[in-house]
Amino acid sequence: MDFDGAMRQAIEASHAAQGVSSPNPPVGAVIVAPDGTVVGVGATAPPGGPHAEVVALRAAGESARGATAVVTLEPCNHTGRTGPCAQALLDAGIAEVAFAVADPNPAAAGGARTLRAAGVRVHDGVGADAAAAGPLKAWLFRQRHGRPMVTAKIASTIDGRIAAPDGTSQWITGPDARAHAHRTRSRIDAIVVGSGTALRDDPSLTARHSDGTGYAHQPVRVVLGQRDLPTGAALRTGPGYLHVHSHDPADVLAALPEALWVLVEGGPSIIGAFADAGLIDEIDHYLAPAVLGAGAASVSAHRVSTLGDRLLLRREEITELGDDLYVRYRRRS
Amino acid sequence: MDFDGAMRQAIEASHAAQGVSSPNPPVGAVIVAPDGTVVGVGATAPPGGPHAEVVALRAAGESARGATAVVTLEPCNHTGRTGPCAQALLDAGIAEVAFAVADPNPAAAGGARTLRAAGVRVHDGVGADAAAAGPLKAWLFRQRHGRPMVTAKIASTIDGRIAAPDGTSQWITGPDARAHAHRTRSRIDAIVVGSGTALRDDPSLTARHSDGTGYAHQPVRVVLGQRDLPTGAALRTGPGYLHVHSHDPADVLAALPEALWVLVEGGPSIIGAFADAGLIDEIDHYLAPAVLGAGAASVSAHRVSTLGDRLLLRREEITELGDDLYVRYRRRS
Ligand SMILES: NC(=O)c1ccc[n+]([C@@H]2O[C@H](COP(=O)([O-])OP(=O)(O)OC[C@H]3O[C@@H](n4cnc5c(N)ncnc54)[C@H](OP(=O)(O)O)[C@@H]3O)[C@@H](O)[C@H]2O)c1
Ligand SMILES: NC(=O)c1ccc[n+]([C@@H]2O[C@H](COP(=O)([O-])OP(=O)(O)OC[C@H]3O[C@@H](n4cnc5c(N)ncnc54)[C@H](OP(=O)(O)O)[C@@H]3O)[C@@H](O)[C@H]2O)c1
Repeated sequence: MDFDGAMRQAIEASHAAQGVSSPNPPVGAVIVAPDGTVVGVGATAPPGGPHAEVVALRAAGESARGATAVVTLEPCNHTGRTGPCAQALLDAGIAEVAFAVADPNPAAAGGARTLRAAGVRVHDGVGADAAAAGPLKAWLFRQRHGRPMVTAKIASTIDGRIAAPDGTSQWITGPDARAHAHRTRSRIDAIVVGSGTALRDDPSLTARHSDGTGYAHQPVRVVLGQRDLPTGAALRTGPGYLHVHSHDPADVLAALPEALWVLVEGGPSIIGAFADAGLIDEIDHYLAPAVLGAGAASVSAHRVSTLGDRLLLRREEITELGDDLYVRYRRRS
Repeated sequence: MDFDGAMRQAIEASHAAQGVSSPNPPVGAVIVAPDGTVVGVGATAPPGGPHAEVVALRAAGESARGATAVVTLEPCNHTGRTGPCAQALLDAGIAEVAFAVADPNPAAAGGARTLRAAGVRVHDGVGADAAAAGPLKAWLFRQRHGRPMVTAKIASTIDGRIAAPDGTSQWITGPDARAHAHRTRSRIDAIVVGSGTALRDDPSLTARHSDGTGYAHQPVRVVLGQRDLPTGAALRTGPGYLHVHSHDPADVLAALPEALWVLVEGGPSIIGAFADAGLIDEIDHYLAPAVLGAGAASVSAHRVSTLGDRLLLRREEITELGDDLYVRYRRRS
């Protein structure tokens, strides 16, 4: 059997679990009947709920018997808040399992061994690169580094300005770029701004569709800085608000022990502080086709004096979003 | 006959005339025999030398008789320093002419009419968009606006920095981006920097291949600013140096009455001055995958206070040059 198409479908399905499954990995699973029909698709439910394999098995019902399970992560072997997925796959009568990424967590690993011991044909490393670069990325990052993956979002002109001298900064980028940024918000665990941006712009930082309605998943909104926000501030309205009274970006990450992916939206001092602390892993750059010639630059760091001090990145994606360009960078490690 | 391939070849040939032909248009011409063989290719020679059609006819020799001439610009009709090309085509026995762009200059126009009157089959507007966006672009700009087309070159980080706080700015971009920028220098009429950049970096501003040898065509090197350069400055060495003791970008353009295309290489104050004066028509942006967080921004203008004051552009080209991104923008008109 050719697993590539099914694995792509499993990765696609796992997007729905991003942000939702934390601190568990956002996994996707697809059950394929012997005749090639997809009989079940699933993604990890919120903590305490079923894992992706169980969601997909339930969707498949009796059709799972003798079928193949295609999963982005090695099925777990341990009984946590839910039972082990390896056992669930055996109970459902799955005959073959293909998974992308081996579980790096010793407590959960061993699912492949259990399945093989029970006579299931197991294929590992199927589409591993694509799966590791997909929704699993931040979770894998956290397993390796013990902290969430941090993406800095920059929306700037060609000359790197994010606001004019009078402070106007709304709509530097166009509607497609904004929609893209909101979709990202709907997949992250937390969004961080400095008290400067919070006080000046009074943003809500919620993830919204272009018609103004909210996404199902909303990130925790975090403000970093000593100054408090007024009681009526938009950020203090609604659930998921955290104020970290500090100037140290590490305090933000420590305050989010279950977060996998954190987006730092600015302003310049906050992105600069994360850069100075070595805590920027990716950059989402929305580049508007315009030159300002004055106004705040997108990043204002303190620990930079010579060219060698720069943060070096690798371009991983370029997409045209209407008039703007979206470029995603990953830090060179 | 299908003229598209021949017109592409004519446009390609005309690159060699860029900078060289000024103030005349850099034209390309291809002579195609009735069996489809290309029997002559030519580009405009320096002023006083033959036009593209004549260069191509000479290459074709007797094979031009009964052949088709494919030219990027309407053959001229007037006797300037050289005779009219329309007559040269008739004398050579050309049976058919296809050209891209009609000559907007009333003194030179009328070539198509002369040729038709003599019984030649004439096709106009062939590949006109491609030819007008090619080497003819700056010449057409000058015909329309009475001044050279101005391109600002920016080599910056993601956050728009062109130098670190200590002034280091060499090699922000990599070798492919530098080679691309040198090729552009080999096609322009003049290159402009401010006295700040000239005094600080002592650049030569010549167009060089990556092995250090010079291109055949070199731009005039122009410094804008009150301060003089020391006698030993690299810019004062070799031919083609001009110092404009002023702060007004219009004075630079006035000092270059025959220039078609001028490249402004910086620094920030000079690019800002051209922006303030409404004299930036295109931007060549070389974007390095790095963040500095401090240091000079690429453009420093004075006439900007609110977001509405920004210069709005249209993206016309995106090319990956090694680690860097090259994006060409054209002002929205
Ligand atoms: N286009 C965009 O993408 C974008 C995005 C965001 C913001 N903006 C614009 O950016 C501007 C705000 O810039 P900003 O730099 O003032 O805002 P900021 O970076 O959001 O906040 C700066 C404030 O954060 C606090 N802070 C916390 N940790 C810090 C640290 N390590 N270093 C320095 N300060 C720290 C300080 O306030 P305390 O005194 O309270 O501690 C400081 O004044 C606004 O005009 C906003 O519209 C644009
Ligand atoms: N990465 C890159 O693409 C790039 C390219 C170029 C430069 N750079 C860097 O840029 C830095 C130089 O920056 P800069 O801004 O000092 O240099 P600049 O823009 O080259 O020159 C500024 C000087 O030009 C003169 N000038 C002429 N017209 C002016 C006007 N309308 N407004 C203001 N000044 C005018 C003034 O000097 P007078 O007193 O003599 O009149 C002024 O001090 C250097 O570090 C250089 O390495 C980087």
